[in-house]
Amino acid sequence: MKLSKDQIKEIQDQQSQINKTKRVTAPKLEEILYEAIPILDHGFIRVVDYMGDDTSIVQSARVSYGKGTKKVSTDEGLIKYLMRHWHSTPFEMCEIKYHIKLPIFIARQWIRHRTANVNEYSARYSILDKEFYLPHPKHLAAQSQSNRQGRGDILDEEKAKKVLDLLKGDAEQTYNNYETMLNERYDGTVIDENSVGLARELARMNLTLNTYTQWYWKTDLLNLMNFLRLRADQHAQYEIRAYADAMLGTVKKWVPITYEAFMDYRVGGTEVSSKGKIIIQKLMKGEKVSIDNSGLSKREWNELMEAFDLKDRLI
Amino acid sequence: MKLSKDQIKEIQDQQSQINKTKRVTAPKLEEILYEAIPILDHGFIRVVDYMGDDTSIVQSARVSYGKGTKKVSTDEGLIKYLMRHWHSTPFEMCEIKYHIKLPIFIARQWIRHRTANVNEYSARYSILDKEFYLPHPKHLAAQSQSNRQGRGDILDEEKAKKVLDLLKGDAEQTYNNYETMLNERYDGTVIDENSVGLARELARMNLTLNTYTQWYWKTDLLNLMNFLRLRADQHAQYEIRAYADAMLGTVKKWVPITYEAFMDYRVGGTEVSSKGKIIIQKLMKGEKVSIDNSGLSKREWNELMEAFDLKDRLI
Amino acid sequence: MKLSKDQIKEIQDQQSQINKTKRVTAPKLEEILYEAIPILDHGFIRVVDYMGDDTSIVQSARVSYGKGTKKVSTDEGLIKYLMRHWHSTPFEMCEIKYHIKLPIFIARQWIRHRTANVNEYSARYSILDKEFYLPHPKHLAAQSQSNRQGRGDILDEEKAKKVLDLLKGDAEQTYNNYETMLNERYDGTVIDENSVGLARELARMNLTLNTYTQWYWKTDLLNLMNFLRLRADQHAQYEIRAYADAMLGTVKKWVPITYEAFMDYRVGGTEVSSKGKIIIQKLMKGEKVSIDNSGLSKREWNELMEAFDLKDRLI
Amino acid sequence: MKLSKDQIKEIQDQQSQINKTKRVTAPKLEEILYEAIPILDHGFIRVVDYMGDDTSIVQSARVSYGKGTKKVSTDEGLIKYLMRHWHSTPFEMCEIKYHIKLPIFIARQWIRHRTANVNEYSARYSILDKEFYLPHPKHLAAQSQSNRQGRGDILDEEKAKKVLDLLKGDAEQTYNNYETMLNERYDGTVIDENSVGLARELARMNLTLNTYTQWYWKTDLLNLMNFLRLRADQHAQYEIRAYADAMLGTVKKWVPITYEAFMDYRVGGTEVSSKGKIIIQKLMKGEKVSIDNSGLSKREWNELMEAFDLKDRLI
Repeated sequence: MKLSKDQIKEIQDQQSQINKTKRVTAPKLEEILYEAIPILDHGFIRVVDYMGDDTSIVQSARVSYGKGTKKVSTDEGLIKYLMRHWHSTPFEMCEIKYHIKLPIFIARQWIRHRTANVNEYSARYSILDKEFYLPHPKHLAAQSQSNRQGRGDILDEEKAKKVLDLLKGDAEQTYNNYETMLNERYDGTVIDENSVGLARELARMNLTLNTYTQWYWKTDLLNLMNFLRLRADQHAQYEIRAYADAMLGTVKKWVPITYEAFMDYRVGGTEVSSKGKIIIQKLMKGEKVSIDNSGLSKREWNELMEAFDLKDRLI
Repeated sequence: MKLSKDQIKEIQDQQSQINKTKRVTAPKLEEILYEAIPILDHGFIRVVDYMGDDTSIVQSARVSYGKGTKKVSTDEGLIKYLMRHWHSTPFEMCEIKYHIKLPIFIARQWIRHRTANVNEYSARYSILDKEFYLPHPKHLAAQSQSNRQGRGDILDEEKAKKVLDLLKGDAEQTYNNYETMLNERYDGTVIDENSVGLARELARMNLTLNTYTQWYWKTDLLNLMNFLRLRADQHAQYEIRAYADAMLGTVKKWVPITYEAFMDYRVGGTEVSSKGKIIIQKLMKGEKVSIDNSGLSKREWNELMEAFDLKDRLI
Repeated sequence: MKLSKDQIKEIQDQQSQINKTKRVTAPKLEEILYEAIPILDHGFIRVVDYMGDDTSIVQSARVSYGKGTKKVSTDEGLIKYLMRHWHSTPFEMCEIKYHIKLPIFIARQWIRHRTANVNEYSARYSILDKEFYLPHPKHLAAQSQSNRQGRGDILDEEKAKKVLDLLKGDAEQTYNNYETMLNERYDGTVIDENSVGLARELARMNLTLNTYTQWYWKTDLLNLMNFLRLRADQHAQYEIRAYADAMLGTVKKWVPITYEAFMDYRVGGTEVSSKGKIIIQKLMKGEKVSIDNSGLSKREWNELMEAFDLKDRLI
Repeated sequence: MKLSKDQIKEIQDQQSQINKTKRVTAPKLEEILYEAIPILDHGFIRVVDYMGDDTSIVQSARVSYGKGTKKVSTDEGLIKYLMRHWHSTPFEMCEIKYHIKLPIFIARQWIRHRTANVNEYSARYSILDKEFYLPHPKHLAAQSQSNRQGRGDILDEEKAKKVLDLLKGDAEQTYNNYETMLNERYDGTVIDENSVGLARELARMNLTLNTYTQWYWKTDLLNLMNFLRLRADQHAQYEIRAYADAMLGTVKKWVPITYEAFMDYRVGGTEVSSKGKIIIQKLMKGEKVSIDNSGLSKREWNELMEAFDLKDRLI
């Protein structure tokens, strides 16, 4: 990631602010506020605003349950209870806003999370930066044979080089032709003073999906956790997981108690179906179990055994 | 409105905070942060948290439109442009959280605005306060004869007194019986040590709809304006308008430029249908107009004439 | 539940329709379309429209995953897979609309599910029916001592009678005074021709929370399942559970494959935290376990043991 | 647009269904159900399911307003009233589902309308079709000089040819390299049996933004109208307007009364700010008006004059 002079200046200006407020603050998050955390080759995330902290969740829960929450004496106990029992609204009382730079094909996955507020850089109005995502060779994997949406083995050096050459060559060529059609370079220089450029809203269609875009993305803590649960998961595509992992780090600085509960109950936890429960119960009693008559499919059986690390029972 | 000792202490504690932050702040709003603004006889609103200010809207718009916004040189010009053209997402970048005390029948109207986060005091867990809304006599109006959902003339003194006696008597009696069923007073005193009380989740059904409840209500600026446009309108029920009017005051302190644009384009503006436009155009040309062949119903005609203050053309 | 003549006529008219359509239909659901299923003493639910069936879910999933879904050969296998892995969007492709009559205090719980479309009978415009919820004595329970929001033992006969007398007396009195203030009876009769009534939007505040209201409520299958998972749960208040249980029955008729998957993975399933997983793994290996050093609270420990029916390990 | 054999077969199968239902139907819409309406060079829209019709809106409004709606005697009068006064929830009672094929850069605009349900063809799982959007020369316009997001004059023949050559060449080359990286052709043929292909979730990043994708898109009538109001507007990008215009045609067949009201009050109507209202009022009285002291900016002034077709007053 390389920031432009303007961006460096903007971040410095933002970070040099010292304002007084009666609102609650999250001191650990304040330390990294506005800072660009590099992701992939040209991307970044920056926390640019936030509202509330762990105590805001507790405050909301206590207004709901009134004296009913007195028994749960500590804030930590209450937050863990809320997380365990899927209470949702108290976690909506915290809000965070990120500035994110990311490749378009990842932006397309990301935007499917609808309960967020977004302002994206518009290529109808302005020229996109000349930056494309080119994966590090260790992330260039073959199509998985067993999983239609997964990755298999890493490509060997020669194949990886060939892929990168194609990606790089095509991205550069299409970007150059984008400039030609616009009659304008990425830095605003006009190419031919005696000619006119194609409308930006049309020329952009020539760009490849690994071109970087950027947006402001704002959401509440509940929906952020829903996003992270899916996108920091090992089944998520590596490129979006890279963003999700960095965001998890910011959540830890922002609402540390909620973060611990989230990791324990959501990220590290597992779900067991009613049929799966019967198998687990038998195993705990030392009874014999078998997929026959379990009502489980082979795939389901294996998912259950993997969840509890029973590798010798995989079939 | 009378605050309890605990509430006064809580507000004082909240207001005495002086935290440092790198976030933007809204100084005028900070001045009234946490303060309980009285509404109706026992209600209030308090701003308890916020995120962003006018510059946050501008910042988001500028990331969207990039260099495209340079022509609109001032923040004010840009915000007015966004409001006029119904741009929505930049206004979603600001968030505000209120603590509100309000009668249940108003809460039922309010909650129909779905794009907000809410934690309400739960009468399943805790006993509701012994407070009911009793309208001031000047708000006790007869059913309108012309408008099925409106109010007509103010009741005369004698009728108003009778209504207030009924409202007060019924609210007190049902609350007393609520306590009897709970075997517990509003202040936690047990009535009969040798008896048990009905479950709170059941006993609450005996309360009248003018009983006060309270909640934390958090929303973004766009949805807040949608709420205020409907609820600060003269057609809204007086009781919810009283809340909306007070909230408009907080918006003015929070995002003054947006507030001005909102009052000009939304609150004070009007809409004209394609058929209505033809009438207006004729009037501007000094041509004769009539409801015949206009395609307008009588009701529509009158709404149009009223919108432009053409009272002599009402039919 | 007693339907008015008008309602009976309306249902008969609706049920006598025989229209031709190229849309998919759900024959079992068609059989009970428009039928009023009684709930509580005066409430009901009626399915009044729907869109899609199990095949609509499959169709959407197959467009998403393209040839990727060919391996899962059957519709049932695919729906189970989608449910197990929390895929959400395919289930949003089905939509259902209910007409529901329910007590106001239950409507207030219900409306907190925001992702639904609602049109409620408006007491600003019209007079509410003279019907109140009076619980059957077997549902009149004392406040639970262990659970702040739960019910404990059933009240004895004498206490139950006293409670019912209070509920009935107050509901009738407040309704009578509502009529008095309106100067109009529930059936539209004017009480005193020479007087005027209080505006309906005001008079309604005198009603108790067990008064019945009604609404059209429309939602997609995903959000319906989220609703049912919470409200058909044993921890939900009995009165809303009664509605949720009847709705489960309609889901079974509408999308039978999805219903089975939902019951297995969501309703009958359980979640295990990362700390809980370690305990379960030890139990399966026959190792000793104890709450000490488990990181679990007493409450959490007991919830885990109960989920797997290990009653002798409760502490 | 050219449909594949499989698609033609699927549409024929769907259209040959004749099911009986007690639900309301929209006969005009049934006639075109499932039919692929061509848009742009390779795109289409198809209505694949729907729920409700004009009477469903009326039914919901009448449950809300009860006897209050009796005065508005006709369905048409009621729907017009609801539209004029921005009533929203009755229009949410109708739902429609489309199958849409569209270029990715248009899909990226479209998806910003969040209140819809979407299942998109996934390029993580499957290979995208070899189809790219190449504009008709009459739509190849230069960047507007006055409007940062608009189009100006049509390119001359020579320039248009050059642009199309670039677009076509780049789309084909990047698609060919996509196949090379996948080691698989668009039709599933393996290129080199002894080699492995790059994971699909990676290879897709090489495609250009004019590649076609497809999705099922379901929304309610209210949100559909919000979409159409923005996207069938003359300021919308031509390519999305082409879809919106075709969808308007389906709305007309589905809910003809609502369609008329929508065209009159929303599409053909205009808004006037409080400052603009003063100017209009003066014009109607034959008074002199000028931008000075009007509080309007030049841009605002011109927008107002254009709205009322007062071209000689443009400045």
